[in-house]
Amino acid sequence: MTTESANPEDSRDGGGEAAEDGTEFEDYADLGATTENAMDIAETSMDRVRELVLDETLADRMRQKAVHATGDPEFQHLVRFTGTDDAEPVRAGARAVLDEAPIVTDITMVKAGITGRGHDCPVRKAIGNGADLAAETGMTRTAASVLEIDREGVYDDSIAVVGNAPTAALALADCIEDGTRPAVVVATPVGFVKAAESRKRLRDVAADHGVPAITNVGRRGGSGLAAGLTNELVHVASDVREGAVDLDG
Amino acid sequence: MTTESANPEDSRDGGGEAAEDGTEFEDYADLGATTENAMDIAETSMDRVRELVLDETLADRMRQKAVHATGDPEFQHLVRFTGTDDAEPVRAGARAVLDEAPIVTDITMVKAGITGRGHDCPVRKAIGNGADLAAETGMTRTAASVLEIDREGVYDDSIAVVGNAPTAALALADCIEDGTRPAVVVATPVGFVKAAESRKRLRDVAADHGVPAITNVGRRGGSGLAAGLTNELVHVASDVREGAVDLDG
Repeated sequence: MTTESANPEDSRDGGGEAAEDGTEFEDYADLGATTENAMDIAETSMDRVRELVLDETLADRMRQKAVHATGDPEFQHLVRFTGTDDAEPVRAGARAVLDEAPIVTDITMVKAGITGRGHDCPVRKAIGNGADLAAETGMTRTAASVLEIDREGVYDDSIAVVGNAPTAALALADCIEDGTRPAVVVATPVGFVKAAESRKRLRDVAADHGVPAITNVGRRGGSGLAAGLTNELVHVASDVREGAVDLDG
Repeated sequence: MTTESANPEDSRDGGGEAAEDGTEFEDYADLGATTENAMDIAETSMDRVRELVLDETLADRMRQKAVHATGDPEFQHLVRFTGTDDAEPVRAGARAVLDEAPIVTDITMVKAGITGRGHDCPVRKAIGNGADLAAETGMTRTAASVLEIDREGVYDDSIAVVGNAPTAALALADCIEDGTRPAVVVATPVGFVKAAESRKRLRDVAADHGVPAITNVGRRGGSGLAAGLTNELVHVASDVREGAVDLDG
């Protein structure tokens, strides 16, 4: 199962022309979008990013994607890698994609951003589960949803993605402390209350329990970034399949 | 019809505790999330934003929301308002919500971020339409989808939201030039290629044709920001309904 939706990259690929009656074509052409192929513009975009970010390691690819997703060169310095080395969470994520591990997102918006191409991973979201737990305890719906699906074993060996909710990140950290072992964690919740703290705690717990993780520092982040980083794991996996990247090399 | 999904605000509200067996409660309590009510944390978050952004006009509310959605105080300076005054697009957006106008997003991810509460607006997305047009012309799927649903009159009197795709913003600008009149435009596409230019063109066209618009400058932006700004229009409409805001005052 994959999502049917557009994703940030599909739709950010840009470019194009409406040749239907000539008028629209000219409108687009005036704006410099004269290419027949939207992929050309996507390449241009990543070329610009590669002028700004190193392109040497698998970790650099995640830094590039962070810059691409946020539109901000500064963001390359805000990505953090938890593992034996910076590339480990990227290797772990790519292997999980090749293993068709589930991609489990916190909210619908992040799920909607996961590419439908280049993988056969089931994509599911936590939100929508755990309503009784939330009602009983007063915890947020997202935190309750993470705890609830964790009881079903959904997070073990998964690509666990938190794009939005600090309390989901905190709940996921609790699950890892309690023995859950995602293949990799991607967590970039955004905001002024507990977002940075929740990522810090997730990094600490992940390091303690040997769970590879890709996170960021600071208050910024969000669903688009989380989806973009996860999609980059899919792209790395595609490169492995095509022999362009060797995870054991 | 409204979306069934979680939205950035629902899920960013944060806070909570898992009192189920006491253990989880302590874990959360250690992190300072001891409130019974997730809304308390949401209030804290907006209180912090209000320390950073003026709280005088309807336009300030959008600036606050931009800061809240991006986690970045700087973003208050990047929001642009096209209209007779800065508050006009906010008034127009709130009126459209009260009129139950359709909210039309570019991609699924933005649609997934639109709150399901506080409005009875149908929420639909452009993407998924116009596949033939895209195949015929080589334009992006998102640009083709905008042109296709515009032919059906979907954008007239709508809340037209572009969160991701510069080419969708350019296509929407073309539609407005050709006579389409959204009630309000919210456009924050992100990226290194044409994102800023597409918003600039949308501002120019919107100004020329009297269409109120809320956009941003710079390369940053994205789906979360677009959804957040649109949700703030819903909140303003709720305040109008409750008598806390007077759009004619």
